[in-house]
Amino acid sequence: MLPTKDFEKIVGRGNVLASVADRQTYAYDSAVLDPVTPALVVCPETSGQLGGVIALCYKHGLPMTVRGSGTNLSGGTVPDSTDSVVISTQKLNRILEINEADLYAVVEPGVVTAKFAGAVSQKNLFYPPDPGSQAVSTIGGNIAENAGGLRGLKYGVTKDYVMGLEFFDSKGDIVKSGSRTVKCVTGYNLSGLMVASEGTLGVISKAILKLIPPPKASKAMTAVFDDVQKAADAVAGIIAAHILPCTLEFMDNVTINMVEDDVKIGLPRDAQAMLLIEVDGHPAQVEDDAATVEAQLKKNGASGIFVARDAEEKNKIWEARRKALPALARRRPTIVLEDATVPRSKIPAMIGAINEIAAKYELLVGTFGHAGDGNLHPSILCDRRDKEEFSRVENAIDELFRRTIEMGGTLSGEHGIGTAKAKWLELETSKATTEYSRLVRRAVDPKGLFNPSKMAAI
Amino acid sequence: MLPTKDFEKIVGRGNVLASVADRQTYAYDSAVLDPVTPALVVCPETSGQLGGVIALCYKHGLPMTVRGSGTNLSGGTVPDSTDSVVISTQKLNRILEINEADLYAVVEPGVVTAKFAGAVSQKNLFYPPDPGSQAVSTIGGNIAENAGGLRGLKYGVTKDYVMGLEFFDSKGDIVKSGSRTVKCVTGYNLSGLMVASEGTLGVISKAILKLIPPPKASKAMTAVFDDVQKAADAVAGIIAAHILPCTLEFMDNVTINMVEDDVKIGLPRDAQAMLLIEVDGHPAQVEDDAATVEAQLKKNGASGIFVARDAEEKNKIWEARRKALPALARRRPTIVLEDATVPRSKIPAMIGAINEIAAKYELLVGTFGHAGDGNLHPSILCDRRDKEEFSRVENAIDELFRRTIEMGGTLSGEHGIGTAKAKWLELETSKATTEYSRLVRRAVDPKGLFNPSKMAAI
Repeated sequence: MLPTKDFEKIVGRGNVLASVADRQTYAYDSAVLDPVTPALVVCPETSGQLGGVIALCYKHGLPMTVRGSGTNLSGGTVPDSTDSVVISTQKLNRILEINEADLYAVVEPGVVTAKFAGAVSQKNLFYPPDPGSQAVSTIGGNIAENAGGLRGLKYGVTKDYVMGLEFFDSKGDIVKSGSRTVKCVTGYNLSGLMVASEGTLGVISKAILKLIPPPKASKAMTAVFDDVQKAADAVAGIIAAHILPCTLEFMDNVTINMVEDDVKIGLPRDAQAMLLIEVDGHPAQVEDDAATVEAQLKKNGASGIFVARDAEEKNKIWEARRKALPALARRRPTIVLEDATVPRSKIPAMIGAINEIAAKYELLVGTFGHAGDGNLHPSILCDRRDKEEFSRVENAIDELFRRTIEMGGTLSGEHGIGTAKAKWLELETSKATTEYSRLVRRAVDPKGLFNPSKMAAI
Repeated sequence: MLPTKDFEKIVGRGNVLASVADRQTYAYDSAVLDPVTPALVVCPETSGQLGGVIALCYKHGLPMTVRGSGTNLSGGTVPDSTDSVVISTQKLNRILEINEADLYAVVEPGVVTAKFAGAVSQKNLFYPPDPGSQAVSTIGGNIAENAGGLRGLKYGVTKDYVMGLEFFDSKGDIVKSGSRTVKCVTGYNLSGLMVASEGTLGVISKAILKLIPPPKASKAMTAVFDDVQKAADAVAGIIAAHILPCTLEFMDNVTINMVEDDVKIGLPRDAQAMLLIEVDGHPAQVEDDAATVEAQLKKNGASGIFVARDAEEKNKIWEARRKALPALARRRPTIVLEDATVPRSKIPAMIGAINEIAAKYELLVGTFGHAGDGNLHPSILCDRRDKEEFSRVENAIDELFRRTIEMGGTLSGEHGIGTAKAKWLELETSKATTEYSRLVRRAVDPKGLFNPSKMAAI
C-alpha cells in the first residue's frame, strides 16, 4: 500500500498527484523509450518537504525518480517501474540569491535554466551553460545530467559552474559540499561526484552557481563549404590560430536542406557543410578574432561567408541553428538524437563514419552540433513503430558508438547514460570502473531506491 | 614481515628504499606536524609497476601513502604509521602527449607542475594553475589536493583543468573516468571525486589536462593603502567594474615590512595594505582593464600606485609577492600558514578577525594572499617547541576557523584537510556529510589502506 496520506501530510494534498491522467504526464521524458507510469507524483514546495518525502520513500522502500522538466535525452527521468514515486522539483523554483559582489548565485533545483540566466543577465552578469532545452530545462536537471550546450568550447559546461551543492542522502539527511568561495577543498568534492550522476546518488536541494561578467561585444558569421573536410580544416585552423569562439556550430547538407525547407532564409541547398560561428569578448578582441576567423574560413575554401552586421542579422544566424532539431524532427515520427563526441581533430573521421553507417543501414541521418568541442549530434530519422527499420537504427547506433570510442571519443558528450546507453559503458571505461562506481552507488543507496534502472550497469 | 623482495621484483632493487636514512627523507611534508618514518619507500617507474605495488600492498594489508614532492601544507603525505609504504611518483614523470589541435595534455602523476607548464608554454599554450610550490610540486599532488594558486579568480584551480583520470583502485585495477573531449558525461564523474581526495580513494596513474591559448598581453601594478578597508573596497570596486584580474594579491603591514627587510626594494613600511594586480588578455582589453583598475584604486584612496612599464618591472612586483612566504618564514622557527577562505566581500571582516585573534592570543601574524578569491594566508610566526606559545597558536586557529565559517567561508581554500584540519570538518558541513563521505571511502577501500589517517573524520 502506498502511504499516499503520509505524502499528503508532508507536502499538502494538492501536491500529491495520484490520478492516472496526472501520473501518465510523468511517464516519459525526451528520450526514445517506452513510457512507465509511476505510482505517485509528489511535488514538494520546500527543502524541508523534499527531505521528508525522501525519508518516507526510504522507510517504505519506494524507488524515487526526481524530475525537473523531463527534457533529458537518455531516459534519466523515465520512472523505473510502476512502483516508483516521481519527485517533481517544479515547485522548488526559487532563486535564493544573486550575489553581485562575490559572483555567485544560490538556487533551488527547479529553477528553469533560461529564467535563471535571464535573472542573472538583469544584474548584468552571465551564466554561460546553455543546453538546447534551456527554455524549459531546470538547473537541477542540468546538474544531474551535466548539461552542455553551444558555449562548451569557450565557457565549459554545467559542471564548471557548480561551486557547491546541498543534497539529501537516501535517508533524507542533508549533505553539504563546496562553498560560496571560488576555492574550497574542505572534504571530498561531492558536488563534483553529484554532477552527471543522474539522480542515482542523492537529491539536490540547493546549488551554488558561479557567475562571470558578461562579454562586452560579440560578432557572428556563417560559412558554407562544398566539402565537409574543408569545414573541418577551417575549425582546426581557427583553434590553431588560438581563437576560442564562444560558439562554433556545424550543420550538414541534410540538416541545411531541412532547415531551409522550414524557414526559407536562403540557405545554400547544395552546400555540404555550414559553420555558424560567434566570437565574443572585448570589442577590439572581437574585431581581431572575427578577422582571423574569416581569414581561416577563406583559406580553407569556404564558398560563401556571411558576417552579421547587427543584432537582427545575428539572431537570424542563430535562428537557423535553433531550427536544426525541430526541422529534422518533423520529417519522420521518430528522431534518435545522438551525442557521441570525439576530440575535435577527429570530426572529419566522425562525419565520414556517420555517412558510412547511414549508407550501410539505409537510414536518413542529419548531423549538426558543436564542432568546436567535437560534440556532434547525428540524428537518425525513422519510425520507431517499424520494427525492421528500428532494428537497423539500433545496429547503426551500436556501430556508431564503437567507431567513436576507436577514435578516442566518448559515448555521451552531454545527454547522459540513463537507460539508453548503459550497455556500452564498459566499452569506453573498464570492468574496474563499473565495479568502483557500483561500490560507491551501493554504499550511499543500500536499498537501491535512487533511480535504480539508470546507469544500470553501475 | 615486509615483502621487500616482492616489491623489488616489481620495481627493481634500486627503486625500493629500505635504509633508515632514506626512509626518514619521506617522513614529513610541508605541514607543521611530527614526522612519521615509513616502513618502506617504493618508486615505481611505470603505470604497470604502480598497479603491481598497490596490489601487493592490498594483499599484505599495508597502508599506502602516495607522495609527489611532499609540498602540501596539511599533512596529506606524512605516512600514517611506521607500517606504511610510501609510494613515490617521482619516477612516473613523463609528459605523454601535448595535443595542440585538441588542446589537452596527458601526463603521469609525477610530472613537476612548473616543468609541465613550461613544456606547454613551449608549444605556445597555457596551463594556468600555479600553486606557490609549482617549482617542485607534482601534477598528481596538485590533483590530490586540488591545488590553487594566484590565478584562481580568473582561471580557476586544478579541478577546472582535469578532463579525465586513470587511477588504480585498492586492488590495483585501473579505473577510467573522463575523456580527451571537452564534454563527457559517460558514467560517474569519478575524476571530479578524485580531485581533492588526498590519496584516500585511489592512486592516480594518468591525467588528461585541459590547455588553453595563452593571453596575448598583460599588465601589472601595485597600490598601497593606509587602511585595510580601503584596499578591500578597491578589490570590490574592481570586481563591480567587471574586471577579473588574472592575479589580485594582498599583503598586510607585517608582511610588507618583512619583505622589505629582506629585499629592500623600497616598499612603504607604513602602508597598512598593498595590492599587487595583473590583468591579461587581448592588448586593447589589457589597456582598458588596467585603466579601470587604476581608476578604482585611486577612487578608493590608494596612496601610491605603481604601474610596471616593462617585463623587468613586472617581475619586480611578483618577486615582492613571491618573497612574502620566505620573508615571514625566516623570522621564527615555525610558520603556521593557514588558508581559511571567505567570499571576497568578507575580506575586511576577515582581516579584522585575524587582527583581533592575533591580539587576543598575543601572536605575531602576517597576512598575505589571494584577495581576488577571498583566499588569504594568515601566517602565524611562532616556535613549535614552545608548548605554551603553541597552545595559544592552536586556540587562535580554532577561533579563526569558527569565525571563517560564521562569515560563510570555508576551512581550506587550497591546502587541504589532511590530518591538520580533520577535526573541524563537520563544523562546516554536517554529520550526514561525514557519514556520506565515509560510506564512499569505505566502499572503495574496505581494508582502509589508502592514506587512512587523512581526512580522518571521514
